[in-house]
Amino acid sequence: MTQKNNATSGVYYGEYLQLEKILDAQTPLSKVKGKPAHDEMLFIVIHQVYELWFKQILHELDSVLDFFQRDYVLEPNIGVAVSRLIRITEIQSVMIDQLRVLETMAPGDFLDFREALSPASGFQSAQFRLIENKMGLRKIERIGFGGKEYSERLSKSDLAKVLPSEQSRTLFELIELWLERTPFLEFKGFDFWVLYQSVIEKNLARDQSVIEANPFLSPEAREKEMKNLKMTRENFEAIFDSEKHLALIQNGQRRLSHRASKAALLILLYKEKPILHLPYRLLTALIEIDERFATWRYRHFQMVHRMIGTKIGTGGSSGHHYLKTTVDAHRIFSDLFNLSTYLLPSSELPTLPLEVERELGFYYTP
Amino acid sequence: MTQKNNATSGVYYGEYLQLEKILDAQTPLSKVKGKPAHDEMLFIVIHQVYELWFKQILHELDSVLDFFQRDYVLEPNIGVAVSRLIRITEIQSVMIDQLRVLETMAPGDFLDFREALSPASGFQSAQFRLIENKMGLRKIERIGFGGKEYSERLSKSDLAKVLPSEQSRTLFELIELWLERTPFLEFKGFDFWVLYQSVIEKNLARDQSVIEANPFLSPEAREKEMKNLKMTRENFEAIFDSEKHLALIQNGQRRLSHRASKAALLILLYKEKPILHLPYRLLTALIEIDERFATWRYRHFQMVHRMIGTKIGTGGSSGHHYLKTTVDAHRIFSDLFNLSTYLLPSSELPTLPLEVERELGFYYTP
Amino acid sequence: MTQKNNATSGVYYGEYLQLEKILDAQTPLSKVKGKPAHDEMLFIVIHQVYELWFKQILHELDSVLDFFQRDYVLEPNIGVAVSRLIRITEIQSVMIDQLRVLETMAPGDFLDFREALSPASGFQSAQFRLIENKMGLRKIERIGFGGKEYSERLSKSDLAKVLPSEQSRTLFELIELWLERTPFLEFKGFDFWVLYQSVIEKNLARDQSVIEANPFLSPEAREKEMKNLKMTRENFEAIFDSEKHLALIQNGQRRLSHRASKAALLILLYKEKPILHLPYRLLTALIEIDERFATWRYRHFQMVHRMIGTKIGTGGSSGHHYLKTTVDAHRIFSDLFNLSTYLLPSSELPTLPLEVERELGFYYTP
Amino acid sequence: MTQKNNATSGVYYGEYLQLEKILDAQTPLSKVKGKPAHDEMLFIVIHQVYELWFKQILHELDSVLDFFQRDYVLEPNIGVAVSRLIRITEIQSVMIDQLRVLETMAPGDFLDFREALSPASGFQSAQFRLIENKMGLRKIERIGFGGKEYSERLSKSDLAKVLPSEQSRTLFELIELWLERTPFLEFKGFDFWVLYQSVIEKNLARDQSVIEANPFLSPEAREKEMKNLKMTRENFEAIFDSEKHLALIQNGQRRLSHRASKAALLILLYKEKPILHLPYRLLTALIEIDERFATWRYRHFQMVHRMIGTKIGTGGSSGHHYLKTTVDAHRIFSDLFNLSTYLLPSSELPTLPLEVERELGFYYTP
Repeated sequence: MTQKNNATSGVYYGEYLQLEKILDAQTPLSKVKGKPAHDEMLFIVIHQVYELWFKQILHELDSVLDFFQRDYVLEPNIGVAVSRLIRITEIQSVMIDQLRVLETMAPGDFLDFREALSPASGFQSAQFRLIENKMGLRKIERIGFGGKEYSERLSKSDLAKVLPSEQSRTLFELIELWLERTPFLEFKGFDFWVLYQSVIEKNLARDQSVIEANPFLSPEAREKEMKNLKMTRENFEAIFDSEKHLALIQNGQRRLSHRASKAALLILLYKEKPILHLPYRLLTALIEIDERFATWRYRHFQMVHRMIGTKIGTGGSSGHHYLKTTVDAHRIFSDLFNLSTYLLPSSELPTLPLEVERELGFYYTP
Repeated sequence: MTQKNNATSGVYYGEYLQLEKILDAQTPLSKVKGKPAHDEMLFIVIHQVYELWFKQILHELDSVLDFFQRDYVLEPNIGVAVSRLIRITEIQSVMIDQLRVLETMAPGDFLDFREALSPASGFQSAQFRLIENKMGLRKIERIGFGGKEYSERLSKSDLAKVLPSEQSRTLFELIELWLERTPFLEFKGFDFWVLYQSVIEKNLARDQSVIEANPFLSPEAREKEMKNLKMTRENFEAIFDSEKHLALIQNGQRRLSHRASKAALLILLYKEKPILHLPYRLLTALIEIDERFATWRYRHFQMVHRMIGTKIGTGGSSGHHYLKTTVDAHRIFSDLFNLSTYLLPSSELPTLPLEVERELGFYYTP
Repeated sequence: MTQKNNATSGVYYGEYLQLEKILDAQTPLSKVKGKPAHDEMLFIVIHQVYELWFKQILHELDSVLDFFQRDYVLEPNIGVAVSRLIRITEIQSVMIDQLRVLETMAPGDFLDFREALSPASGFQSAQFRLIENKMGLRKIERIGFGGKEYSERLSKSDLAKVLPSEQSRTLFELIELWLERTPFLEFKGFDFWVLYQSVIEKNLARDQSVIEANPFLSPEAREKEMKNLKMTRENFEAIFDSEKHLALIQNGQRRLSHRASKAALLILLYKEKPILHLPYRLLTALIEIDERFATWRYRHFQMVHRMIGTKIGTGGSSGHHYLKTTVDAHRIFSDLFNLSTYLLPSSELPTLPLEVERELGFYYTP
Repeated sequence: MTQKNNATSGVYYGEYLQLEKILDAQTPLSKVKGKPAHDEMLFIVIHQVYELWFKQILHELDSVLDFFQRDYVLEPNIGVAVSRLIRITEIQSVMIDQLRVLETMAPGDFLDFREALSPASGFQSAQFRLIENKMGLRKIERIGFGGKEYSERLSKSDLAKVLPSEQSRTLFELIELWLERTPFLEFKGFDFWVLYQSVIEKNLARDQSVIEANPFLSPEAREKEMKNLKMTRENFEAIFDSEKHLALIQNGQRRLSHRASKAALLILLYKEKPILHLPYRLLTALIEIDERFATWRYRHFQMVHRMIGTKIGTGGSSGHHYLKTTVDAHRIFSDLFNLSTYLLPSSELPTLPLEVERELGFYYTP
């Protein structure tokens, strides 16, 4: 217990931050075992910092999930949600950059305490599993570690914290529902989608002629590009055909529902209309979050490779292989990245009738 | 020509930096074509900034190559080389981080000028090809773009700049030669390698028992780990057997020569000995450079995916596929990362005889 | 002229980026004078990179100025303006971080070419003077360099580029006008400002009792705090009294007009109302830009101090003194920072009548 | 207590990191008081992260102090010390950058819980006071907070941790002693300092003529520069005259002893000699640490200004004034920055006799 003098009447910095707990939670095992390794302290501290940031990310994520749980998302909450998602991206930047601190540890110095940690592993971070689940990573997409699920590596109490998140609605699902509720998919007396389709078809035809005329493609490369274009075209048709879209979902090429995909596309296309601007920023923030988690995983993989080469990690399995396979496999919002395939130059964007324009503007009469 | 007044007698800022050229080199094609797209300026400027940084990296790289061209690298030049390689890593950090500036461009806004650029492509950066060649990327490892080599995409004058670098000695080769010349591989009357071998074998045996006892491995995962360990063990034997090492090189698992690998290992193991400290920092700087180019390629891939989805790029081919395959395939110094597999905890490091210690220290008698 | 082969039909990377100009614009004077100094290349390249970023900042700034020149700012343009101002902040981050590259140059190595550059000076960057003027730095606030104005250090042609910006409307002025046009300062039948005043007065009274009761203040410190509080109170009164506000402007304590200050305050207070959310992000972006330029100047000062100690710079005057005095003196939007003094906890924020709420919301009826 | 299953036999991630303490140490007071403010969690978490980093900095600092406590610093320890000081600079980078996370909090949102924290204040961070003391901040230079010393604001137990550091040897003092022990200040039969003096005098004479001839200086500015030069010259004389140096120390213009200053100067001048290279990197790391703490304080000041304007902080005193005055006042190693004033271009550096050269090289005979 902190001793009090009159300097500490009222709230005291150290007590408010509970520094007695925070700063008394570092027990290097190498020291316990009588062979103190200087760098183990860094290893402990940086992981604790990561866990604190995970806690903060969960705090923001939970509040955003809460906004979107309701049947109707209150308009002011979109702005707040964007701010909180942007905060998550700033935290992710710090998470990525602080790997450099860990990389000041020489691989040989890590070995001085590595063995003592076995079989603990970062795979056992309950909070990170929670983040993944709440974001919307599905069991089916999750790469196992050592061929096993996380449930086998977590303590009972950690598992008790994580399991409910497997059942509850994820950010992916709630965003999908919100997108599906977008009221702007059809405009009275104006068939946006017909116009849109003709422009995209023109663009795809142009892409085809570029590929055909490109003198720099080998025959194999050209064939591959043509195949790729064919798929792009087929996928494009799915925008107008919910059956085809469903087929793409069933074979794993898509995840986002037909209606939600159309809404997201519309938001990306008309991002500058006042009423779509915040939704656009929301989608952009989700893209950023996905991108930064992927970068973090990639940098994490590099760091582990550098630290232990091709050896097994403390968790008794090849950590860097696991990490590398998750880099892109654990992305949640790839569909939002892929929508860029079907955007249009603003100059080719169908002009909206004045009435529709007004619906997408603010209402203010002085 | 800048008009002169007496304010500009002597060297003038704008003339020294040749700003008339630098700031007059942005001609957005969208503007030329009568449909000005605001964001094309950013696209031009950021690419020019990249090219300026490439020029600086080449300036540093060339000077380091020059130090190592000689039969004997002057000792003071090792320190200078380390400083210049560290400078390259700082430039790479800027290169990675400034992708965020490009990501402020919305995918839709990119489309407003994308078509006008066809078939120009970042693949045509002569300077980046030069950097890769000078670092030591071999033709055989180079991923083609659209199935073709860069020679088919470069202008004659650019090709004339790049081709000589295919023949000259690369940083990889010069570092290899320098490592091979290390005089410390054998110590009179002290067989380091015998001691070393026995410690590593003990460690590998321990890893094996960890894998066997690990309750969290599925049978398939265990089998995979055991296979991996077996390979680690075989590769380890190559450290003591130049024939086996040669075999690894021939089947593409290694690139660095037997003697150079041993020297690098020794430097990593005894990095704190004064005479090995700068060599250690040199190897670390090479690892950092490799790591940051890989990160840059990964972030580059993400950015392109986000910008154009799965479409072909301006170069008439699927840019983001190309970029993704190069991320790890174009790494040069993987062997240095992999050496971490065979490091030891400092506590298990064979103690050197006093005489050897003295050889590895500084000479100073007051 | 780049030689063409069929690899370069159509747009070619190097020509599009005009790399012949960009990469042929580095002529180290130390080399011209026969004593090549390796690091002069870095000095040239990094300054050219800065000038390219300045060009991009001006491109964004000009487009934003253009939006706000009109009598009525189109709603979609607010979102675009926010995006472009945020882009400026991302460029500033790069500008700040890349000082680390310059700091890889040892002070002694700088001396190898410093003398040759005299009397050139970064003070002669026409583009940076343009940025300052367009942002709204007034002649009266501008710190002279060596006691003289920039007009005496710029070439005629540079001066011809900069001078018009002294006369044209600045970002500060245009934002001020836009704020003054805000239609929400008065609400029918609801006197927001009376409610607001009573809450703030309560808060200031509380601050006073905190100062009086604070056992950790020396008598002098307490007196200083009370004086500070008195000033805060007087300044607060100016919010309700345009005469008092004018007096503050005249004695240099304020710059932003009475009406614009009230509008900005309202935006900051009710930032979550949909119609005020983008204006809030706009003000935040301006605060960020101001903050990052100040950080850049502070880091610039540090770097110069480290490089040349207390010597005169290449411009023949004490560069680091000049830079240090400009750090905070050249800030433009301090008034926006200071408004935080008069914010309220959201819990104490006067509730708006439903009718007002609706005015501040979006209009959409399905 | 974490429940165990067989998943947690051996070391378990969550227990090793003591996450029960770390993640159970956030109790927002706003919640306790029944008015939960979402952003208070961020406020708590980021301060805890800072304290964890402070702990790590102290861990590194203590180990470096320990190396230098001895009468003779072991050569290998210089390399290790450099690595650990560089690690501190990497941590500082993270500390600076993560202020951006805090800046995602809107000023108004901070007010929602600010009052509850009174009178707690960051000034009460015992660890940061420890860092300052151990680095070498002297009582006499320490800016009081609210006119009072930290001893009046710390709890008894915190004070008990901090007070011993006021008496023990600081990094500044230990580095000074180490520099004073440098054996290279005199070389047999070679008077370096006479040669050095003549070159510097020539350079100062040149600087004088630059100032006299500079057409861009106002009379007042010229006078000021001449005064500055006169002081530079007088200070320069102190390099050769220990009495004059002592006088500078006594009037507060210098802190580092005469002998240590000469040693540092020699190291900076001949940084590329193998035996001086690591000492050079050590001095550079100290300069970086000083620079980054200053940047951190400057950014901290900005953030507080932005958050509360000109109001008193939670500590009951004007936080941002205090922070701003400490930015440069609390720097420890300014003398190392100032030494740049007396460096030479490498081309003018007196050539060392071969014998001296050899002393400064490595000893190795194969």
